[in-house]
Amino acid sequence: MFLNNGWYVLGFSNEVGPELLARTVLNQDIVAFRDANGRVRALEDRCCHRAVPLSLGKVRPEGLECGYHGMVFNGDGRCVFILGQSDISATACVRAYPLVERAEFLWIWMGDPALADEAQIPVIPFDSASWRVGRMKVTVQCDYLLLLENLMDLTHLPYVHSATIGSGQADSHGAAEMTVERTQTGTHLRRVMRNIAPPETFAALYGANGLIDRWQDLQFISPSIVLQCSGFCNAGELDETNAPNSGQIYYIVHGITPETDTSCHYIASMADKMPPSDDQSAALQKVFQEDIQVLEAQQRSIARTGKNRLVSIRSDRARIELNRFVERALAEEAKASQTDLVLEALV
Amino acid sequence: MFLNNGWYVLGFSNEVGPELLARTVLNQDIVAFRDANGRVRALEDRCCHRAVPLSLGKVRPEGLECGYHGMVFNGDGRCVFILGQSDISATACVRAYPLVERAEFLWIWMGDPALADEAQIPVIPFDSASWRVGRMKVTVQCDYLLLLENLMDLTHLPYVHSATIGSGQADSHGAAEMTVERTQTGTHLRRVMRNIAPPETFAALYGANGLIDRWQDLQFISPSIVLQCSGFCNAGELDETNAPNSGQIYYIVHGITPETDTSCHYIASMADKMPPSDDQSAALQKVFQEDIQVLEAQQRSIARTGKNRLVSIRSDRARIELNRFVERALAEEAKASQTDLVLEALV
Amino acid sequence: MFLNNGWYVLGFSNEVGPELLARTVLNQDIVAFRDANGRVRALEDRCCHRAVPLSLGKVRPEGLECGYHGMVFNGDGRCVFILGQSDISATACVRAYPLVERAEFLWIWMGDPALADEAQIPVIPFDSASWRVGRMKVTVQCDYLLLLENLMDLTHLPYVHSATIGSGQADSHGAAEMTVERTQTGTHLRRVMRNIAPPETFAALYGANGLIDRWQDLQFISPSIVLQCSGFCNAGELDETNAPNSGQIYYIVHGITPETDTSCHYIASMADKMPPSDDQSAALQKVFQEDIQVLEAQQRSIARTGKNRLVSIRSDRARIELNRFVERALAEEAKASQTDLVLEALV
Repeated sequence: MFLNNGWYVLGFSNEVGPELLARTVLNQDIVAFRDANGRVRALEDRCCHRAVPLSLGKVRPEGLECGYHGMVFNGDGRCVFILGQSDISATACVRAYPLVERAEFLWIWMGDPALADEAQIPVIPFDSASWRVGRMKVTVQCDYLLLLENLMDLTHLPYVHSATIGSGQADSHGAAEMTVERTQTGTHLRRVMRNIAPPETFAALYGANGLIDRWQDLQFISPSIVLQCSGFCNAGELDETNAPNSGQIYYIVHGITPETDTSCHYIASMADKMPPSDDQSAALQKVFQEDIQVLEAQQRSIARTGKNRLVSIRSDRARIELNRFVERALAEEAKASQTDLVLEALV
Repeated sequence: MFLNNGWYVLGFSNEVGPELLARTVLNQDIVAFRDANGRVRALEDRCCHRAVPLSLGKVRPEGLECGYHGMVFNGDGRCVFILGQSDISATACVRAYPLVERAEFLWIWMGDPALADEAQIPVIPFDSASWRVGRMKVTVQCDYLLLLENLMDLTHLPYVHSATIGSGQADSHGAAEMTVERTQTGTHLRRVMRNIAPPETFAALYGANGLIDRWQDLQFISPSIVLQCSGFCNAGELDETNAPNSGQIYYIVHGITPETDTSCHYIASMADKMPPSDDQSAALQKVFQEDIQVLEAQQRSIARTGKNRLVSIRSDRARIELNRFVERALAEEAKASQTDLVLEALV
Repeated sequence: MFLNNGWYVLGFSNEVGPELLARTVLNQDIVAFRDANGRVRALEDRCCHRAVPLSLGKVRPEGLECGYHGMVFNGDGRCVFILGQSDISATACVRAYPLVERAEFLWIWMGDPALADEAQIPVIPFDSASWRVGRMKVTVQCDYLLLLENLMDLTHLPYVHSATIGSGQADSHGAAEMTVERTQTGTHLRRVMRNIAPPETFAALYGANGLIDRWQDLQFISPSIVLQCSGFCNAGELDETNAPNSGQIYYIVHGITPETDTSCHYIASMADKMPPSDDQSAALQKVFQEDIQVLEAQQRSIARTGKNRLVSIRSDRARIELNRFVERALAEEAKASQTDLVLEALV
């Protein structure tokens, strides 16, 4: 069960064109290509003739050419060429998906195209002109919800990330101030730890040495983005605006797009104010690999034993709020789609 | 659903003896061995004692010895030796399959042995004495029907084989003359393209340079052979007997034997009139690999999405005729086997 | 269907601690660790918080710490630490399994802990102080019963082990004297072959050359041990006490622990009276690999075709007795567990 009516991150803008991008999203095979006008289009990756993936084909001025018998489909999914045949049936078409290129991400709408509202695409509060931006993309063998939950329960830092962003921090995380609130579009988690020693990653990446105040601000935005604004400053200098005049602020956009029921694409962008260097992406990769090892083991365990006999603890508040939001949204989408069916029956 | 009453290519003659040949055909594990008289015999590859594959065993003068406890089975599948035991029950036997060695192929009959008629084995119109013969054998991860259909719709050449046998040929294939007819044993497809530039493979293999007439004559012979006779000659010199006095003629026997529901053995022999060289087999391999890449992607796509919402186009005529033939044959076989059951019940 | 109320070999004593041991037994994921008192404890390998395997965690003085959010479980499976939370619910616990360390093996009880009786652990008739002991541990992709059956039908030696312990022995094995009896705890098989040439392994390992008497004494002890006492002596010098004053005696403990329905751990120890050398373990490995090749092929065959249409032969007596024992024990366990349910309902 996935939310269909929502914008998911399909990938980075620069993954398309001249190359095709083939990616499975919500169990559906998608192919994206850049059309003759430079616009990225997304089609069902399955020719309507013999079901061969269109991603084996080539981009032509008129659209995407199937690599088996040469049928060409335009960006709306209509077949516009069949070899040796001038008349083309209107049934010769493949599904087209709304796709928007914005903030160096490709945003795809998996539900009813009539509902696709570009205003719902999350606003990314940085750009590569004024920030140092690092990127990461990996497919993780776990249910996308496990990854969302991971981000909304940060007491895992001193254990999963004991050598990087959580080193020597168990007591600090145990005593963190935590605020959780439901928002219009998801869940908002804010954590503050005051007067703590910096973890190794902060020392390595930002030269932190004395005691710091550290904050973590995470917004889960439905269906599947976590927008993180975190940072630290000298102990005692943190105010509530997240705009410290010492230390560092950094953003991470976590785009977590379901691939199948038990796998997801983790497509992320990190921005900070440091001069360009390879260290940032490397640090991001290392931290994410620590998560992935745990998450894939968790997925295998759940596949064998289910989710029964599990208990929640106090630090789970944001995770539980996230789960409730998703369940409500799924129920609302199911109800709306049933209403549509009734209306269609009445017509 | 496979046709059982028919001759399938199990492999090449020289694959058996002194070595065993273990191969799965129509979801059944088969072991073939050469008996003391030099005759190739085919048995169920499963000892009736503890279900161990007989192909782990050894050929003995009396038959095939199981590698676990030493039981020996003769070519009829009867057990003729049990260690330390002189009396042998008639129930100690494994299934034997009719097998005929002909034209350097092994032909196996998967249905009722009483119906196995050697006269139904397709006649191969060449031999390695007077032709240059190249061979190829590969297991393809697709339903055998996808491979048969591939051969019966040759408009795929300019796309799948754009670097080999179909290079620069889209317009020629779009304008090809096509004849399709139903035959007693399958489907006959004939295509002719006149006054065209030769594809790269013809130039490389046969030195073709000026404009040519090219013909493709393919006979699908049920249950699973395609006998191809193709060639080319100087433009304007083609007559309808396929016996041009210029250019080249070549044959391909495509033996396409189902392994499982989603895989098949592609066992093929190509004959032409050129002097011996490695180029022929290499060219065959390259072309087939181009097909295999598409077919395996098609199979994965169909496994995920089924065959619904597919449309046919004009060039599909032979493919559709092939599908109809197979469906009719399956229905007839099912009906005949039901009649058998009724007759048995009456007895 | 497995017997739960019984002691299985989980592994060797020296596999645990400082390292954890994670192993799946009877389809259940187990983690073993050595607690602060040096005692080996076995827990369900799944944190009750988010189902992550505890084997990703660390051993702490208080117990085993989960690698995700740091919850700590003691050897009884009770949670004794949650980060930032002082009160801990009694429901925060994981299953603990009775575990006994004895004779360099770890013995685990998979059923009702109230029934775990250490007196039922098989007595191992050797120790590494007075014997040369070699060890082997491998996971085999077959139902554990296939491996037990293999050990209880030794006419496979001249075929499966034709290059090692069964070389040149078909006639000898065909004429072996065999005694099979049901015991309180399993099945007892005794075989004697008199006046035979020694197999290659006896020549290589023990310098056997002239004619020998060879005996094989195997006790299947439910649920899943075979205790083997075998050996040989000069022809004519064997008495029935298995204590020949010439030749060699050796023991093998075959610990065969189901991992899943179609795989098992083969954990074995071999003891003889020779001076230390690597030859012993190497010989054991080689012989077991010969079995494994056959058993895994047998498993794949049974997975495809089931166990129907199989026949038994005369040498199967001990195997059949073993199967009967296991079936009876399974039926008794099922009945006892139903009685428990009825008694609970009455209370």
